Amino acid sequence: MAVDLPLGFEFAGAACGIKKVAGREDISLVVCRGGAVAAGVYTTNRVFAAPVAVDRQRTPSHEIRVVVTNSGNANACTGERGLRDAQEMTRLAAAAVDAAPEQALVMSTGVIGEFLPMEKVAAGIAQAAKQLAAHEDAFMEAVRGIMTTDRGPKIAFRQLSLSGREVRLAGMTKGAGMIGPKMATMLAIITTDAALTPEQAQASLAAAVEESFNAISVEGHMSTNDTALLLASGAAGGEALANQDLQTFQRALTELCIELAKQIPDDGEGATHLIAIEVRGCDTNADAQLIARTIANSALVKTAVHGGDPNWGRIVSAAGYAGVAFDPAQVSLRVNGHLLYEHGAPVAFNAKTVSEAIKSQRETHLRLQVGPGAGASRHWTSDLTTDYVNFNALYTT
Amino acid sequence: MAVDLPLGFEFAGAACGIKKVAGREDISLVVCRGGAVAAGVYTTNRVFAAPVAVDRQRTPSHEIRVVVTNSGNANACTGERGLRDAQEMTRLAAAAVDAAPEQALVMSTGVIGEFLPMEKVAAGIAQAAKQLAAHEDAFMEAVRGIMTTDRGPKIAFRQLSLSGREVRLAGMTKGAGMIGPKMATMLAIITTDAALTPEQAQASLAAAVEESFNAISVEGHMSTNDTALLLASGAAGGEALANQDLQTFQRALTELCIELAKQIPDDGEGATHLIAIEVRGCDTNADAQLIARTIANSALVKTAVHGGDPNWGRIVSAAGYAGVAFDPAQVSLRVNGHLLYEHGAPVAFNAKTVSEAIKSQRETHLRLQVGPGAGASRHWTSDLTTDYVNFNALYTT
Repeated sequence: MAVDLPLGFEFAGAACGIKKVAGREDISLVVCRGGAVAAGVYTTNRVFAAPVAVDRQRTPSHEIRVVVTNSGNANACTGERGLRDAQEMTRLAAAAVDAAPEQALVMSTGVIGEFLPMEKVAAGIAQAAKQLAAHEDAFMEAVRGIMTTDRGPKIAFRQLSLSGREVRLAGMTKGAGMIGPKMATMLAIITTDAALTPEQAQASLAAAVEESFNAISVEGHMSTNDTALLLASGAAGGEALANQDLQTFQRALTELCIELAKQIPDDGEGATHLIAIEVRGCDTNADAQLIARTIANSALVKTAVHGGDPNWGRIVSAAGYAGVAFDPAQVSLRVNGHLLYEHGAPVAFNAKTVSEAIKSQRETHLRLQVGPGAGASRHWTSDLTTDYVNFNALYTT
Repeated sequence: MAVDLPLGFEFAGAACGIKKVAGREDISLVVCRGGAVAAGVYTTNRVFAAPVAVDRQRTPSHEIRVVVTNSGNANACTGERGLRDAQEMTRLAAAAVDAAPEQALVMSTGVIGEFLPMEKVAAGIAQAAKQLAAHEDAFMEAVRGIMTTDRGPKIAFRQLSLSGREVRLAGMTKGAGMIGPKMATMLAIITTDAALTPEQAQASLAAAVEESFNAISVEGHMSTNDTALLLASGAAGGEALANQDLQTFQRALTELCIELAKQIPDDGEGATHLIAIEVRGCDTNADAQLIARTIANSALVKTAVHGGDPNWGRIVSAAGYAGVAFDPAQVSLRVNGHLLYEHGAPVAFNAKTVSEAIKSQRETHLRLQVGPGAGASRHWTSDLTTDYVNFNALYTT
């Protein structure tokens, strides 16, 4: 990597045997010994996992010193015992870096409904704590420690100058299945050395998530564990950001989150295409996102893209059941720039050319103009393939 | 068939070349020369097909004499020209049986976004009109004329005695893909010789559809063409049904519609399982249906059933994002009678036994107890297989 990591953080990953494949990292530590301002955004699923319950009570915070994550087990649907296990994880991680338990956050991802093997978890935390370091190899170990079915690490970086002071952001995320309709079976940790108040951190993260992790899906199944955390060490120096600097930081954070978020459906289980859906001309951005998400969740749209089939009827009809009022006679659709449907009627087009345009590119771009309004939104999803079905028909057994 | 068809109706089907396979019926006529009371329930998709626009204006009615249906082309997303074509279909069908155009209804199903080949349609209607008959072979021809990707005909019959008078119902439906969240790419015609007023017919049909065609899905994609029609000839004699007789008729109609509706996901494209989802203990029936439908639309639930995988976490987590408030600690789940999750915590069970129970039966039964409420509902869907993906990746090209 040719990037500088944010100042004030140490990272580590360790393999403790939660994952079935030996030697695969399944514990990850992100540490800020000086104490970081921390914000969190979580799944809105009513069935939420134990670590989500713990972190919700502890963010926003002005002093978080460690985030411990395990992969391979989601600690979800595990009742009272799961809650005690999540709290014990924060106690163990905090003790390893001389912090108080309430200065620790916890995340889990993996299979739902099994109890955590706490002896292994404890050994993994102890091992990782010995390896903590601020260099890139340690960062990548921590990234691998949060991965599940991901084919590779998902990371993004930004560096910007705010009132002459260099500020760095580093983000990691994971997720490939059980993604959507809001957030995903995804975890994300964004570290920065910018100085932020807890309120600023929370507001900035919430705004960034809305346009990124809340605008992606794989199959539209909302997970129990989704968590995005922002940790700000303030080690870049200076007072909490204000005015123009705060806006610049917000833009960089949103762009970084979008760059991270798009990697999730691009790596969607079995995916051969990343589908970028742009909806314009609605009354509100929320209406546009609802239509984009409904198109994204249609198995018929996703299989059509997989087959390189310019089957625009599936796209237009999906928009029609999103629950948003619009005049069908005003709708137009472009696929990879080709106009297929205009003002509510079919347009003659060369199906072979459009099919080839879909098949030859990893990203398929759908652009739906719904009416004359100013509301617009984007959503990213993956196509639906036989590999997705085979993979998920055989996941736990 | 060992059943009597309702009195007062004639049926016919003909092959006119709309479908690509030569000789496959693609025009269907259902005729009531004496004039039938007619009711209709239609897709709620904002992008609705031309025949839906025509029929909506003509039902409920006290005098419909013919229903003409074509398969192989949905006449959807076809703008003004599509609307003129649908009206022309009713004019041609009405003329063939000496009726006025407004005494005809029309339905279309098949590919979206192509204009109807009206010369073929006209020839098909003329051919079918010559073959009209009241016997079973003619009924089955009409059934085949509304089929698209269905593997076989979907029919159901009832016969009941109301105040000593024999009354018959005969239903036909079609649909295998683009099914749900409400109604489906499905058409249904239920004929009866009971005497009903237009208001009774409309109310009876609406109530029956709510528990049947509105409670099924394949992949949750709401179609542009969904139509269910009830035609009552009154040929069984007597005045319009009243009191106990009307209630008995309603029960028979609802049961017949459920029997028809379940055949659709059972024949879902590529399906190897019919999944019956029963949700109990909600505040309202509508809440229960919302949870059942959300579980039904989860690709992760559908692939798990396909794989014979008792992955109950996917089912419980899907319930959690249905948008219905409940206490996760009160939730219990049974799969094919086996208790897998009780009061918010996992139950030890033999995974092999439950997996075998799923694999060895065509129907998988999920029963979710959400709380202590009286609201309950049922929903039927199909599993998600590689055959579904292959089929839909290659449908139009």
